[in-house]
Amino acid sequence: MRKTLAGAALLLTLMRTHSAPAAEAVLSPEVRAKAIALTELAFSGTQASDWVRSLTDRAGPRLAGSPGDAAAVAWGLATMKSIGFANVRAEKVVVNVWKRGIEAGEIVSPVRQPLTLTALGGSVPTPAAGLEAEVLEVASLEDLAARPEAARGKIVFFDKKMRRTLDFSGYGEAVDVRGDGATSAAKAGAVGVLIRSIGTDHNRTPHTGGMKYLPDVPKIPAAALSVPDAELLERVLRAGGPVRVRFTLTCGDAPDAESANVVGEIRGREKPDEVVVVSGHLDSWDVGDGATDDGGGCVVTWEALRIMKKLNLRPRRTVRVVLWTNEENGGRGGIAYRDQHRAELAKHVLMIESDGGVFRPQGFGFTGSDAARETVKTIATLLSGIGADQISPGGGGADIGPSMQEAHIPGMSLDVDGSKYFLIHHTPADTVDKIDPVEMAKCAAAVAVMAYVVADLPQRLGE
Amino acid sequence: MRKTLAGAALLLTLMRTHSAPAAEAVLSPEVRAKAIALTELAFSGTQASDWVRSLTDRAGPRLAGSPGDAAAVAWGLATMKSIGFANVRAEKVVVNVWKRGIEAGEIVSPVRQPLTLTALGGSVPTPAAGLEAEVLEVASLEDLAARPEAARGKIVFFDKKMRRTLDFSGYGEAVDVRGDGATSAAKAGAVGVLIRSIGTDHNRTPHTGGMKYLPDVPKIPAAALSVPDAELLERVLRAGGPVRVRFTLTCGDAPDAESANVVGEIRGREKPDEVVVVSGHLDSWDVGDGATDDGGGCVVTWEALRIMKKLNLRPRRTVRVVLWTNEENGGRGGIAYRDQHRAELAKHVLMIESDGGVFRPQGFGFTGSDAARETVKTIATLLSGIGADQISPGGGGADIGPSMQEAHIPGMSLDVDGSKYFLIHHTPADTVDKIDPVEMAKCAAAVAVMAYVVADLPQRLGE
Repeated sequence: MRKTLAGAALLLTLMRTHSAPAAEAVLSPEVRAKAIALTELAFSGTQASDWVRSLTDRAGPRLAGSPGDAAAVAWGLATMKSIGFANVRAEKVVVNVWKRGIEAGEIVSPVRQPLTLTALGGSVPTPAAGLEAEVLEVASLEDLAARPEAARGKIVFFDKKMRRTLDFSGYGEAVDVRGDGATSAAKAGAVGVLIRSIGTDHNRTPHTGGMKYLPDVPKIPAAALSVPDAELLERVLRAGGPVRVRFTLTCGDAPDAESANVVGEIRGREKPDEVVVVSGHLDSWDVGDGATDDGGGCVVTWEALRIMKKLNLRPRRTVRVVLWTNEENGGRGGIAYRDQHRAELAKHVLMIESDGGVFRPQGFGFTGSDAARETVKTIATLLSGIGADQISPGGGGADIGPSMQEAHIPGMSLDVDGSKYFLIHHTPADTVDKIDPVEMAKCAAAVAVMAYVVADLPQRLGE
Repeated sequence: MRKTLAGAALLLTLMRTHSAPAAEAVLSPEVRAKAIALTELAFSGTQASDWVRSLTDRAGPRLAGSPGDAAAVAWGLATMKSIGFANVRAEKVVVNVWKRGIEAGEIVSPVRQPLTLTALGGSVPTPAAGLEAEVLEVASLEDLAARPEAARGKIVFFDKKMRRTLDFSGYGEAVDVRGDGATSAAKAGAVGVLIRSIGTDHNRTPHTGGMKYLPDVPKIPAAALSVPDAELLERVLRAGGPVRVRFTLTCGDAPDAESANVVGEIRGREKPDEVVVVSGHLDSWDVGDGATDDGGGCVVTWEALRIMKKLNLRPRRTVRVVLWTNEENGGRGGIAYRDQHRAELAKHVLMIESDGGVFRPQGFGFTGSDAARETVKTIATLLSGIGADQISPGGGGADIGPSMQEAHIPGMSLDVDGSKYFLIHHTPADTVDKIDPVEMAKCAAAVAVMAYVVADLPQRLGE
């Protein structure tokens, strides 16, 4: 792998001999050499997937405020210190807490069949004896909006199929029923909501995920059926006649608790006040180990710093890794960072979030000025050897979003091949065995090169 | 598909022009023409996978003696009558009953992690508060036998990996720990057993399956971990120091109940007393829908009869479809058939069981005399067009076994590509979406041709 990468990088160097001066200024021979070194070390020296294994084996599921979350924060602090990052600290965040409890379901009539389902995160519980009602199948929020009177007293079943796509567009199309289904159905007088899992697998492990209520709309319980169960319910419904379902959830909110964003740095050698943030979220849904979502994202971002350290590369600006808390079910980690760091947000040069899995990287999504985009595109050419040189519009992340918005900070998301992500996303099957160490090493290389070069630019990104 | 199959069959006919007289006697031009017609109809006219869907949607999980089992028996009777089989009947069988109840597990120390597990079928429950003990990892029954003193007071974890193989050899190698693990461990003074699921997937759905106790050995509870959970426990164990696990099962035996083997026939036109049995088992494990194990096996065997009927093919001998009960956790269906049909077993010419899934068929396993084997091999050449012409040694099945043994009846199992079977075998993921209609149609064709030609042989098979 070492030779191939060096060769690809050499080819890149040759290809860019006649590039525009601006690009040449960004990609000096020294920068190119460092990019090669970072990429090679990401491959030859990484234990990225071992770090994920270490996290998931020690902390396991780690919904914000849970014992697993506390274990993950302790692990993050200890591990960052052991690597030798500067200013390693836990920045306290008060998070909202939600607990899952028991979940069960069945078709009651015209046939009796068990249903495998899981509460959507944030759902209220059903009555203790379960919630039983006739089912109304709808294809989408729009379908429900077209005939709201049909939903009164019913359990609304959002049977919206997710397309399998290389990017996240299939997810984007389907996920509205998870977030807004309960509120839309409650407005129409429904008593409960079931959705087809937002996922592309046919495993019997349903996909949880966040949902939201509105203040003035009744809160009704909501759960996701595994895809085979959704298909069963669909067939039973389409066979004709009324179909009754009962489901039981004992989930619900608990008092707020203390958690933390975990932070570590390499201080800049010239402009330590200017900051490039690389980040993933340390919390996970409770149903799985959150290896891919987002243990992998946490690790590839700190791998970027670890590799820089190993090569004694100290960029002009500070590179800061942030492991967010409460991404999955509250977003308070990102909000707390914005509030706690408000005074220095103007000095944030770029914020990167990796929260789409650590499968084969394709590049980055980017939000920022045209000038900044041109520079980022130039830097991305250094990643063509690993196929991660695409810069697509619309970078960001749930956690970096509040700060980006507050101070107009350029934002990036690591873009990866999404075709496998939604087989396991938000399910019990999100375990460390699903991570390919080589694909993950490429992700680490991509983040390391992008973060280093931006942090080391002679002029601030976009200027 | 129609043309391709006809072409392949024609090629076969030409290739066999110079065959030995014995083969020519078996495969007359009329027989060849009928085999082509059966195969073509299996493709063009089958609703085989629709029948499975009908079974699983109406009956769902159907462990012997359960409401689903009763629904399946009713479905079998009604459907066979609707197709017009002769002598459709339920032959009563008193079955043993086992119920699953609650199952939960966790690593207690040195880390706290949930474990996804499922009781092995037949297991006794744990104490109500759960069973907690230190874990001893062993690789196999032999490994435990080499150091039995290490197991005293422990939960023995059989961490035996199943190889993924095209045939069932990987299963055969691994499954002994499921059947005999609890007894072996109890003899050594262990208090409980966990096994790595006997499966080749990395889903988070553990594989249940039968296990047995011996009269004079303490009965200790036994459960299977999903493969990712087994790998987690393995890593935690190998990190060093004692590892404690707690698991809770509320499963246990219930009083015997009434079930039935469901039987239907095409009566033979010349020798109706001589019988070829084609069969699958109607019961399933309670965790899934048993679409592949063994709804598919039931349906491909009766499809054989349905297709004969559709073509107005009435062989010399009777072809009888038997849908067995209680295969998974007691075997009383096969025993009852032997006892209820003892007087006519001598007139059983061949018994076929399909219980290995309905993936791409490869041929049949066969147990019987050399002369019978030669004839069967000749008949199998009719199936080369669909790639199902292999006759391998050792055919049989759990349900046909007792009768075969009692009366030295030749036995066959439908052999299929097993590489996908153990992704879902005995798990909640065994649902109808896992069945490929085309692969299943090939299975139906194979059973139809083999059963018809054997039932229509001028001389009894093997004579």
